Amino acid sequence: MAHDDSGSRPVPARSLADGILFTDQYQLTMAQLYFDRDLHERPAQFEHFFRSYPDYGSHQAGYCVAAGLDWFLDWMEAATFDAQTLAPLRSQLDANGNRVFSDPFCDWLGENGSFESLTVRAVPEGRVVHPNAPLTIVEGPLAIAQLIETALLNQLNFQTLIATKASRVVEASRGRPVLEFGLRRSAEFGANAATRASLIGGAVGSSNVGVSAVMGLNPVGTHAHSMVQAFMALGEGELAAFRAYAELYPDSCLLLVDTIDTLGSGVPNAIRVFEELRTKGHEPVGIRLDSGDLAYLSIQAALLLNEAGFNDASIVLSSSLDELLIFQILSQIDQEAPRYGLDPTALIRRLAMGVGSKLTSSEGHPYLDGVYKLVALDQAGEWQPAIKISETPAKTPNPGNKDVYRIYDRRGRSTADLLTPHGAPLSDELDLRHPIEPNTRRYLPAEGVSEVESLLVDVRRDGARVIDPFDLEQARDRRAEDVERLDPGVRRLVNPHRYHVSLTPELWDLKQDLVRQARTERR
Amino acid sequence: MAHDDSGSRPVPARSLADGILFTDQYQLTMAQLYFDRDLHERPAQFEHFFRSYPDYGSHQAGYCVAAGLDWFLDWMEAATFDAQTLAPLRSQLDANGNRVFSDPFCDWLGENGSFESLTVRAVPEGRVVHPNAPLTIVEGPLAIAQLIETALLNQLNFQTLIATKASRVVEASRGRPVLEFGLRRSAEFGANAATRASLIGGAVGSSNVGVSAVMGLNPVGTHAHSMVQAFMALGEGELAAFRAYAELYPDSCLLLVDTIDTLGSGVPNAIRVFEELRTKGHEPVGIRLDSGDLAYLSIQAALLLNEAGFNDASIVLSSSLDELLIFQILSQIDQEAPRYGLDPTALIRRLAMGVGSKLTSSEGHPYLDGVYKLVALDQAGEWQPAIKISETPAKTPNPGNKDVYRIYDRRGRSTADLLTPHGAPLSDELDLRHPIEPNTRRYLPAEGVSEVESLLVDVRRDGARVIDPFDLEQARDRRAEDVERLDPGVRRLVNPHRYHVSLTPELWDLKQDLVRQARTERR
Repeated sequence: MAHDDSGSRPVPARSLADGILFTDQYQLTMAQLYFDRDLHERPAQFEHFFRSYPDYGSHQAGYCVAAGLDWFLDWMEAATFDAQTLAPLRSQLDANGNRVFSDPFCDWLGENGSFESLTVRAVPEGRVVHPNAPLTIVEGPLAIAQLIETALLNQLNFQTLIATKASRVVEASRGRPVLEFGLRRSAEFGANAATRASLIGGAVGSSNVGVSAVMGLNPVGTHAHSMVQAFMALGEGELAAFRAYAELYPDSCLLLVDTIDTLGSGVPNAIRVFEELRTKGHEPVGIRLDSGDLAYLSIQAALLLNEAGFNDASIVLSSSLDELLIFQILSQIDQEAPRYGLDPTALIRRLAMGVGSKLTSSEGHPYLDGVYKLVALDQAGEWQPAIKISETPAKTPNPGNKDVYRIYDRRGRSTADLLTPHGAPLSDELDLRHPIEPNTRRYLPAEGVSEVESLLVDVRRDGARVIDPFDLEQARDRRAEDVERLDPGVRRLVNPHRYHVSLTPELWDLKQDLVRQARTERR
Repeated sequence: MAHDDSGSRPVPARSLADGILFTDQYQLTMAQLYFDRDLHERPAQFEHFFRSYPDYGSHQAGYCVAAGLDWFLDWMEAATFDAQTLAPLRSQLDANGNRVFSDPFCDWLGENGSFESLTVRAVPEGRVVHPNAPLTIVEGPLAIAQLIETALLNQLNFQTLIATKASRVVEASRGRPVLEFGLRRSAEFGANAATRASLIGGAVGSSNVGVSAVMGLNPVGTHAHSMVQAFMALGEGELAAFRAYAELYPDSCLLLVDTIDTLGSGVPNAIRVFEELRTKGHEPVGIRLDSGDLAYLSIQAALLLNEAGFNDASIVLSSSLDELLIFQILSQIDQEAPRYGLDPTALIRRLAMGVGSKLTSSEGHPYLDGVYKLVALDQAGEWQPAIKISETPAKTPNPGNKDVYRIYDRRGRSTADLLTPHGAPLSDELDLRHPIEPNTRRYLPAEGVSEVESLLVDVRRDGARVIDPFDLEQARDRRAEDVERLDPGVRRLVNPHRYHVSLTPELWDLKQDLVRQARTERR
């Protein structure tokens, strides 16, 4: 067993880092400070939200898709301090060789160091969400509600990031199936969360065998270039490789045609094998194109397949796809296919998209800027709203425990998310305040509103999970419905229209009061 | 327990996805094909390499840093098929309701489905590496050596990506300590690999408590804005928060000064608390700046600290830092500090860098394009080199099992990595062939070469790990030494000079022969 510098402490197994120690050091130093001041069990409310949509450089998100909650709940319910997880804290020394964490604090963690006591409200997975509106609200003892921050942000930020990217890829794909192929270039075991989030974001399947099993889906995938290479190294060729594949998988025969020369060898060899399959009573599935000009090659491959009578054979596209490239490829097909006598709609209808690295890494914007802020603290039985003043006004969070309402206009389209103090009734005529600009407001009379929907649901209460069990289909349906109810301008892949997140006058006034107060008391 | 669509299969626990099922479906369909053709135990050689350095858009890597091997070896040694991991394969059905994986194949996996049989050579962690030169070479039964692809790429690609980014951040920081703070916005549990890789890449510490424990280091961290907010919500203020912190951590007092107003309140309050600490015989550590113009604020904070006699107090910078921003901040300090009567070198000497999201996500280029290619297959006891012809010549891999030599010039600087068939002797006068351009070559006479170093070491052989146990300090030293021996142009953050990766004439000829042969046989 390996040892650290001192030669005395055995280095623990890697799995130690997956449980309650999956946190930042300052969460623990703060928790000890609260313990020391007898503030550790003071009821506190924290809020998780993100500040801005991902901006991928050449294209930008106009909405996000919430994801990650169910796995996060599993994690938090399993995470707990015990002798093994306390050992590294008990042995931590500061620069002077003194222990960082005292025995009384470690003992308290041993007794109370779990997330059992936390109450959680959250936006369900699959829902469209917007910046500065709470996605998750946590209530519980100050030290414990603080301690959950790192894992909560890590898990919800990442899956929300990836579900958002997946939703955009699905939108760009015009309803064609999107398959997630990113495992080989994903962020180590974060890959599994990325696959799950991709499925919530609208991907119909994944090559990831393990997570597909966990999610109750069949994984997707056929063969790689290496299979063709292996047959070549054996003195056989691509055709022999394709034949072997078709023989073993006659009813799910999808062949990768670009190992040697897509149009000169791959597609003709595939067609030969497809013909052989047909004579044996099997219908081939199709081909996959993994390099080159995918628009041009899919047109040319379709021509060859059609000529041979395989008009329904699928064409799976892969190779560095993202939403913008898919959009461009489909636009190019729209333009070019007619020149070859092909109906672009019919061609696009047989496509599927294999999307990998750029999906599971959210290429262009690889992290979500989600934050977790203290919004209220109990003072003698009353909630005292908390504020953090920032030199950037947009970074001053909205104080206090809140409700979030989604407002739908007369057409049934979502027109704004409205934040209000928790439990405060909404007036009939809505007064939507801009969160920062004092003079920007919008009135919505009752007749302009078709529906007002509360977004946060109870997740954990009285020490138990109360949210409905996670259901992938339901989450995917929620995403599809929410996206459908967005303004087309908000759904645009490039420079989308900005969705409104507003405050009620009550919340606006509370925020202004607190900012004034903090500025006065500053010393 | 949740169920899938059919309502019959119980959905397994998430941890099922972390073991041997952490793979792409096509690895298994191909393995079954090899099994079906009795090719599954045919000895095969595969090679892992990456094609291009990360290009972060405004800046580009001129080298990478290998990382991830030790955790990958732990994973592969633990990964195995058993009843639990075979169950999802046995129950997988194709579109017609037929089983995808046969019982004989599943039984074979149950008996032989581990990576015990693989022989591995690799470049040790911490070493500088370059495109198209093998980082890892795997030899073993075709089906098993194929099956390891996904996990190998996932784990080695990601840690190499992050160690590379960390090395760049360390270079930009001019020797000042770099602290990894990215956990909250990392890719879920990939965060732990990111922390490890950051440490290999030169970060001196991390806020990640779990991985720090696993690596035998003390985690770093003090307090967040929320601690100051909590005291404000209690009717106390920033000063009270700082005092509480100093009382509990008198010898490691580092205060975050930007919750309210950095120069108007944070730094003055910190100085007051530092003075109180000093009267009690403790020396404060310093302050952290987490927003605003970090160059300007660090100059102003230094002036205030110096005036109060805290000339040695550290100033930790954080907030969306990456290598380019750090470079710019330090350049700005070089320019601006003298105008305020400050010695820029003295100021920079007291800085430390807290680097988070942009490090652990490798912002700008969030995945490494590493690939895993079949390079040879046993044919009647002889290695038959394998080739894949690509329409892009740069994508045609170099065939056969290989050795990699690093060539150092007279100054002791590394001048090229040279690929040659495994076991082939190097000639005294080196003839370095460009991997694609037939007429680009470079001769290096013996007197122009100070050292020739073999880069690949034996990692696993005869079913056992033979590489020296991983040692973090050693890996960090290797990185530092390798970077030091690069040409300064290769180390440049922006548009670096291109390092040469060359072929010996023997390898060049082999590649040309195989390409010609494959082109002829194409049908």
